[in-house]
Amino acid sequence: MKVLGIDLGGTNVALGIVNEKGEIMLKKSIETHVQDGFESVVERISSASLKLISSTGSVDRIGIGSPGSIGHLSGLVRFSPNFPGWIDVPLGPEIERRVGVKVSLENDANAFVMGEKWFGKGKGYTDIIGITLGTGVGGGVISNGRLLRGSTGIGAELGHIVVEPNGYLCGCGNHGCLETVASATGISRLAKEWKGRYPQNTLDGFSAKNVMNAARNKDALGLKVLERVSTVLGIAIGNLIHIFNPQIIVIGGGVSQAGDVLLSAVKKRTRENVMRSFWGTYEIVLSDLVDDAGIYGAASMGFEEIKS
Amino acid sequence: MKVLGIDLGGTNVALGIVNEKGEIMLKKSIETHVQDGFESVVERISSASLKLISSTGSVDRIGIGSPGSIGHLSGLVRFSPNFPGWIDVPLGPEIERRVGVKVSLENDANAFVMGEKWFGKGKGYTDIIGITLGTGVGGGVISNGRLLRGSTGIGAELGHIVVEPNGYLCGCGNHGCLETVASATGISRLAKEWKGRYPQNTLDGFSAKNVMNAARNKDALGLKVLERVSTVLGIAIGNLIHIFNPQIIVIGGGVSQAGDVLLSAVKKRTRENVMRSFWGTYEIVLSDLVDDAGIYGAASMGFEEIKS
Repeated sequence: MKVLGIDLGGTNVALGIVNEKGEIMLKKSIETHVQDGFESVVERISSASLKLISSTGSVDRIGIGSPGSIGHLSGLVRFSPNFPGWIDVPLGPEIERRVGVKVSLENDANAFVMGEKWFGKGKGYTDIIGITLGTGVGGGVISNGRLLRGSTGIGAELGHIVVEPNGYLCGCGNHGCLETVASATGISRLAKEWKGRYPQNTLDGFSAKNVMNAARNKDALGLKVLERVSTVLGIAIGNLIHIFNPQIIVIGGGVSQAGDVLLSAVKKRTRENVMRSFWGTYEIVLSDLVDDAGIYGAASMGFEEIKS
Repeated sequence: MKVLGIDLGGTNVALGIVNEKGEIMLKKSIETHVQDGFESVVERISSASLKLISSTGSVDRIGIGSPGSIGHLSGLVRFSPNFPGWIDVPLGPEIERRVGVKVSLENDANAFVMGEKWFGKGKGYTDIIGITLGTGVGGGVISNGRLLRGSTGIGAELGHIVVEPNGYLCGCGNHGCLETVASATGISRLAKEWKGRYPQNTLDGFSAKNVMNAARNKDALGLKVLERVSTVLGIAIGNLIHIFNPQIIVIGGGVSQAGDVLLSAVKKRTRENVMRSFWGTYEIVLSDLVDDAGIYGAASMGFEEIKS
């Protein structure tokens, strides 16, 4: 069995043909060119898909991971913040029609956790929380083996768990969401805000990557930001452990590439928040799918739907 | 079809025979006498059950709602804070053996939400959050029609969502859990702590009931406590809406009898926390099963297991 996974991003679209063993047999990246409009984006994705497929024979399904609010049954993108004008656009059906292969469309954070179940650290588990720390914070939940979608398909917005009541204003309109602190954007902001207190800091710019590198090198500003980030992640993950009683929490997204300096701080903070009866029931790990997590996630939605 | 519902409490055990229409055909309450030990409690519950059943003919199942950590497949009470010595005791099997009717054992907060689905405000819904505001705060979740238990059966601990980081110490060992503020105990404590600031207060004692009555009568101390309680409930319920995308949130337990003064404040605070795409997707209501919620919840577990 082979599935073409398509990871739709605001800047690039990654496509890859994945087999059941989790090997990416062929992959390709094209620019999204959102500004050219829905029809044009669909056309170019379809054409790239057809080329990839023709090089490997055939695929059994296409899985697409897309940001925003998704109708997974209808294949509609209902709304997606970085895709202006994409209101209820039939992304699934249009690609299905052009490429001639059945399409499974899913929100990219939901696809992420499914990718972890099929090909990553979640393999063999039934209760998995996925958290992606990128420009924003995304979330996906597999509970009792099934993806949590919610009654209207917009659940698992884990980035909007409140971790700092009266905290920073979030893009969603609330204050103190996890995303305001634990995203790359939030990390970068914290470093800029605190830099005046740490004039000796060794930061080479204020990107999340630089901040985490500094923390790894025991720079005081880096450590200060890490403390705040791991505190809020510990609150959110602690909440999720009490709610879902998961076997594993997988952290992905660009920020997760900070590696052990982040992971060990998050583990420590989470443990402080979790009641005794949950000790030993969960693991917290970093995703190792890294750059291909988007392709794996998208493809896994195809495998999951073929299977069920 | 008829089910005997048994609501096991630290002080009393409520038993009731419920039919599919949700009528309680016969009910009875006995004292628990926890101090007499597990064997004696089981013996008296079994004997009361046999008497009730013999008065109505027969029942198809027994459902039991018990506080604490429950093995619903094994019928074991693993641990229950107010039942000293009840470590891995076979409550389900022992009652089944003595009464001769199959038993479904479940945590009482899980049973509460199932009771709402079968007989209460959750009827006809697939995605339901139940929150009980009593001595502590309990929670139960039905997602996509199924009770959320988690990987080791101890999930849905909604009372331990952190709503005030660095807040009050909770019985669980963490600080700032929902339960520290929104339980009857938490409400009572807040009123006592703030009474010095409100010497003109009209409170007739500091029970949660008195505090809520005072709020209804626009007493300043009552309103102050209500503001804090509804704020934290708004945070927790907002989180749960973003996570589960539920159709309905049902609030029960003794504190919920405060009625509209509590409900309208909680609705307002929750709305402030919820992002636009969720507006109109959920309702927040108070349980109307009231005193019989425990029997209904327990019985519903029996109906649910017969059905599935």
